[in-house]
Amino acid sequence: MNMNMMEAKESRAKHWLSYRSELKVLDCTIRDGGLMSDHHFDDKIVKAVYQACVDAGIDYMELGYKASKRIFSPTEYGRWKFCDEEDIRRIVGENDTSLKLSVMADAERTDYHVDILPRDQSVLDMIRVATYIHQIPAAMDLLKAAHDKGYETSINLMAISTIQEWELDEALEIMADSETEAIYLVDSFGAFYSEQTQYLARKYLRHAVPRGKVVGMHAHNNQQLAYANTIEAIILGANMLDASIGGLGRGAGNCPLELLLGFLHNPKFRLRPILQCIQEHIEPLRAELHWGFDIPYMITGLLNQHPRSAMMFNSSDDRMDIVKFFDTVIEEE
Amino acid sequence: MNMNMMEAKESRAKHWLSYRSELKVLDCTIRDGGLMSDHHFDDKIVKAVYQACVDAGIDYMELGYKASKRIFSPTEYGRWKFCDEEDIRRIVGENDTSLKLSVMADAERTDYHVDILPRDQSVLDMIRVATYIHQIPAAMDLLKAAHDKGYETSINLMAISTIQEWELDEALEIMADSETEAIYLVDSFGAFYSEQTQYLARKYLRHAVPRGKVVGMHAHNNQQLAYANTIEAIILGANMLDASIGGLGRGAGNCPLELLLGFLHNPKFRLRPILQCIQEHIEPLRAELHWGFDIPYMITGLLNQHPRSAMMFNSSDDRMDIVKFFDTVIEEE
Repeated sequence: MNMNMMEAKESRAKHWLSYRSELKVLDCTIRDGGLMSDHHFDDKIVKAVYQACVDAGIDYMELGYKASKRIFSPTEYGRWKFCDEEDIRRIVGENDTSLKLSVMADAERTDYHVDILPRDQSVLDMIRVATYIHQIPAAMDLLKAAHDKGYETSINLMAISTIQEWELDEALEIMADSETEAIYLVDSFGAFYSEQTQYLARKYLRHAVPRGKVVGMHAHNNQQLAYANTIEAIILGANMLDASIGGLGRGAGNCPLELLLGFLHNPKFRLRPILQCIQEHIEPLRAELHWGFDIPYMITGLLNQHPRSAMMFNSSDDRMDIVKFFDTVIEEE
Repeated sequence: MNMNMMEAKESRAKHWLSYRSELKVLDCTIRDGGLMSDHHFDDKIVKAVYQACVDAGIDYMELGYKASKRIFSPTEYGRWKFCDEEDIRRIVGENDTSLKLSVMADAERTDYHVDILPRDQSVLDMIRVATYIHQIPAAMDLLKAAHDKGYETSINLMAISTIQEWELDEALEIMADSETEAIYLVDSFGAFYSEQTQYLARKYLRHAVPRGKVVGMHAHNNQQLAYANTIEAIILGANMLDASIGGLGRGAGNCPLELLLGFLHNPKFRLRPILQCIQEHIEPLRAELHWGFDIPYMITGLLNQHPRSAMMFNSSDDRMDIVKFFDTVIEEE
């Protein structure tokens, strides 16, 4: 073995066994999982996830949305669609921990002038703005307002697998020019393979890093690739990672936090509290909420479609007839 | 955009939308799944998998093992541990299809002089030799005998995540010198990440390709990476891919065939017959056989251990107490 090979091997080994301290993990169990429960969760569950995140050394926990009560009815949706300050405090008190708290705010669906308090009146640390490409101007207003109120901010541009590349490039320029601290690569439909993830992660990093911003990764598990794609983004330099306990999240769910912690070697993370939470609180929800990889979600991911048809199918009486779902979706293509 | 970038993009697009005709898919549903059922499967199931493979355009189907009846009792194990010619023919007749048939033969556990018939007396096309590193000489004898009887051959070196690199290099030299047509990269414990898969696939290809041999990939799903690692191996040049319907296989199971067919763009492959087989025959087995990703299998994969402790745990009364399993395994490490 020559010296170059030895050095290459040593550097790889160092990489495999070391860790990147600037890498942050965000738990989105209650927020993304809320899309399967209309944001109804018992306080007991939310408290258990909060405590598990604290005990496991997670960096951020996302509690839900800051949705407008003019647009969404508080009698129809659970309280984690609105995340009123008093509801959050009932779970976290003054949150005297190292875990930071975030909520997601959808562009054009958030009354941010009234519903997002000045930061010194809130236990929240971060506002994460979610937007479709056509809402970018509204998203930028929302993001600036949150930033000006004192919050950390990030932006999640959704459904990018359905837009043109020139649109994405322009959106990335605008986001890189904004106040945001992080720009998330989001695989809304669970449609990316490793090559797309790598291509897009490099593109996001080219825009974000020179402006001092971090790239995040938010993956869905329609093709059992949420964790794999998150790893690819990490390898390329993404430093903010979304994951959820037991993978709880919309449709096929998210990158499972328990898998992600296995890959990260930072000793501040602990797996056991997450396993405890899965066993006692998350797995018991599965029979009711039906998240996680299955064939209908695989099919929408494969076809780069929103999972809503699979979600409807999975709550219908036909839910075992996956061939029927396949035939229907293929015919509509 | 300059010309180099345009060319790079065109070549990527070509790669994403094209296919590699020399790439072969082997269905190991009944063989690897047999490790969860002691190789008991009703003829109805085996016939359904066979028909699904034929209809879906799969290249090879593996029926089971050629285990020695001196070592393993035919009253204890099902017939797919032995794959007698008459049992195979009861399923496939003369196999007048384009689907080739294989069995696996374990080194030191196969009476190959008597149990492997001359090829002109069998409907089998391929003998796949499985071996641990210390059995390589016995495996080479077995492989040569199968080759000399007229079969296609391949070799699966198992549990390589537990051996030293100099041992692996020597084994690869021996295998590359042998009669085998394919050398499989095998992730027995589901312990590989993409970087290990890439490193090892490149190593295997360096040995195999100059000798005119193909590299195969056989992955396990302990960390939800079986499909992702199979894709990585494909990208680097692996041309023989193991997968199973519904991922049925030992422990966390294999790369799901339905996912793999989604990635491969060769129009000869059809997804619908596989979905039909899942719905009618494979999913109904899940409650009894308990394969597929779960936390105990994740833990053994993460720790690079054989899944047997997780398999025992999953068939015990404690099976919901994943924290207990975690504590036990960590303590024994």
